[in-house]
Amino acid sequence: MHHLSNLTTERPTFVTHLECGLKGDRYPADQLHGLSQAGRPLLVRYDLPALAGAVSKDELRARPADIWRYREFLPVRRRENIVSLGEVLTPLLPCPTLQTGRGEIFIKDEGRLPTASFKARGLCLAVSMAKELGVKQIAMPTNGNAGAALAAYATRAGIETFVFCPADTPEVNVREIGAQGAKVWRVNGLINDCGRIVGQGKEPMGWFDLSTLKEPYRIEGKKTMGLELAEQFDWQLPDVILYPTGGGTGLIGMWKAFEELKAIGWLTGKLPRMVAVQATGCAPIVKAFEQGTEFAELFPNAHTVASGIRVPVAVGDFLMLRAIRESNGFAIAVEDESILKARDTVAAREGFLMCPEGAACYAAYEQARAAGRIDADESCVLFNCASGLKYELPPQTGRLDCTKPIDYAALK
Amino acid sequence: MHHLSNLTTERPTFVTHLECGLKGDRYPADQLHGLSQAGRPLLVRYDLPALAGAVSKDELRARPADIWRYREFLPVRRRENIVSLGEVLTPLLPCPTLQTGRGEIFIKDEGRLPTASFKARGLCLAVSMAKELGVKQIAMPTNGNAGAALAAYATRAGIETFVFCPADTPEVNVREIGAQGAKVWRVNGLINDCGRIVGQGKEPMGWFDLSTLKEPYRIEGKKTMGLELAEQFDWQLPDVILYPTGGGTGLIGMWKAFEELKAIGWLTGKLPRMVAVQATGCAPIVKAFEQGTEFAELFPNAHTVASGIRVPVAVGDFLMLRAIRESNGFAIAVEDESILKARDTVAAREGFLMCPEGAACYAAYEQARAAGRIDADESCVLFNCASGLKYELPPQTGRLDCTKPIDYAALK
Repeated sequence: MHHLSNLTTERPTFVTHLECGLKGDRYPADQLHGLSQAGRPLLVRYDLPALAGAVSKDELRARPADIWRYREFLPVRRRENIVSLGEVLTPLLPCPTLQTGRGEIFIKDEGRLPTASFKARGLCLAVSMAKELGVKQIAMPTNGNAGAALAAYATRAGIETFVFCPADTPEVNVREIGAQGAKVWRVNGLINDCGRIVGQGKEPMGWFDLSTLKEPYRIEGKKTMGLELAEQFDWQLPDVILYPTGGGTGLIGMWKAFEELKAIGWLTGKLPRMVAVQATGCAPIVKAFEQGTEFAELFPNAHTVASGIRVPVAVGDFLMLRAIRESNGFAIAVEDESILKARDTVAAREGFLMCPEGAACYAAYEQARAAGRIDADESCVLFNCASGLKYELPPQTGRLDCTKPIDYAALK
Repeated sequence: MHHLSNLTTERPTFVTHLECGLKGDRYPADQLHGLSQAGRPLLVRYDLPALAGAVSKDELRARPADIWRYREFLPVRRRENIVSLGEVLTPLLPCPTLQTGRGEIFIKDEGRLPTASFKARGLCLAVSMAKELGVKQIAMPTNGNAGAALAAYATRAGIETFVFCPADTPEVNVREIGAQGAKVWRVNGLINDCGRIVGQGKEPMGWFDLSTLKEPYRIEGKKTMGLELAEQFDWQLPDVILYPTGGGTGLIGMWKAFEELKAIGWLTGKLPRMVAVQATGCAPIVKAFEQGTEFAELFPNAHTVASGIRVPVAVGDFLMLRAIRESNGFAIAVEDESILKARDTVAAREGFLMCPEGAACYAAYEQARAAGRIDADESCVLFNCASGLKYELPPQTGRLDCTKPIDYAALK
């Protein structure tokens, strides 16, 4: 193994048990689990005082720059079960031209992770834990990027995978899933239809179900976004985090990270306001937030250009809503037209190409600023959850004939 | 500015002058330069003893994980001229299933850089230096990825850009170039035809020419690949580096890095054998290497699926050939068919999707092993120069109708 990797060193781990995110009942660690008895997500619990005694902020900083520097905060017991494709810490890009006041705007570019999306965080952990717990076959419904990350990690772990995508999933996603060794099908429905195919196939096929939040470890992977942000901002978090919200694992994971860091005393100031960004064509969390309910209803006729956040119903709805409310944040929906315009604006001004889901965060920022829901002095992080290159971009029509003299003046 | 960034600290710089890579005549630093008087690339020279006195290996290791940790080895004088999109250190992926003997195989995944290719390294430095030296307009011919990187950095720097691509440049590249704020044209020719348009337009348009090696700083950016590799391997480099070779900036840059590190005593062992990988449809360097000539002739009727290495003539030919020969390496050409097969093999075995140019390195590794040109015990680094997602992937045909009962047995 080469240098500048965290995978050369074994470290102590601190998982004590799992508990139902809704009811709080306990489940043993080191066993394979899906949902809780109440049919809700399981949260991984740690011996936080022992964890805090085993690692310091200074030690963390001196470790190589990948998510495995946070090993003590993660569930994988043994180093040899870590399935890695190089999970780098993702850069924070200051975007001065997007600022509307004194509050700085940063884009966190999650497109730098393996398979070019933030899904790598969750799937890296989920597949590593699946390997540790002896899983041989995995199935998953996906809008694209999660399936690509699953395929990559599972193939690397020698685990067979079955992936189901809505019919209009971007072509590049379906192709990368297949190329990276998974079996993949397009389904004439939405992601919840794909989820039903997985759910009904579990028993006859012996599949382990890796749907969003239906196993406990994708949250732990997404938690690294919160750990990373805290460290990048030197343990003084920004005022607002705008996060494109489909299944919501990242929102839940970041909030879990902040709670754990607060519990061990590494975060002492106020926590950021968590803002869930959805599309007007698929906004179940916005609706539930505005109606003040604990759970969200299935959003009918879900549609948006930002396919990653086209999730009409989510099993972790109450955990998202809890994080939004506890943080004094909000949920906001933006039109598809604003999403594409936001993408084009950021690319043309900052030279940075966001994915539509990421661009939705900038559209939401503008909308929330105009409505006075975010203050001009508040610092904000916009999550760009995947590489903008995975999505269709506006065509360019310029042509030149090099067999004839070039009319340079016409190029200006 | 946030934490975990090298851009918060000003550091001393050590450029003394530039010199012609062919003739060795000197040119002053801190002035705008194109080619030397002999029409050949200029190399940046440093006060290496002073540099070595200003930074240590341990200091380097403690800095944040981006290319700006190597600031003393780079030409930008003032921090405020650094144009950055978050140039992370790229991961080295061990690939045990590709090994044919005791020699370990690593893929260096350059697709993690801004705009998803290694071109970001060179363009980040070139644009930063253009900013430092007062350039207002840049033009460039490109097979795609270099133009995308230029557009991103130049837009961020507020510099206007004009980009010319061969007609069959991948659609995604042309679109990202335009989206990121450059003016872009498709030209009915190859990259040298595009280069001619830039060359002839320089005077009437006032363009600065950022063609490969026609300004001195892209090499300095690519040099960071060598610095990074040396540090990642704890200053004990692997036996062989296989590098997809078009314009050759990276080959030249890495060799320059190794020479500088050797001069300051940070590298003491033997240096890696540098292997230039080309496609049989465009192999000018392979031909020159085999014929023992100092320069390469224009390769007629250039064609290959790996568009990034479709460069029929390169102004830095003699520098590439020098690095290959001095390192006791070689140049090797692979068929398009082997390139695509290599890509599919690596993705299906390791879960990692290479770009065609990167896959050419694995095809070359297999071919060179079979021919006895690489030994089973030699450790090798294969450069994956861009994200595999930028290229057309094999289609996936699986379909399921979720309105009918699923025949699960048929999915096996």
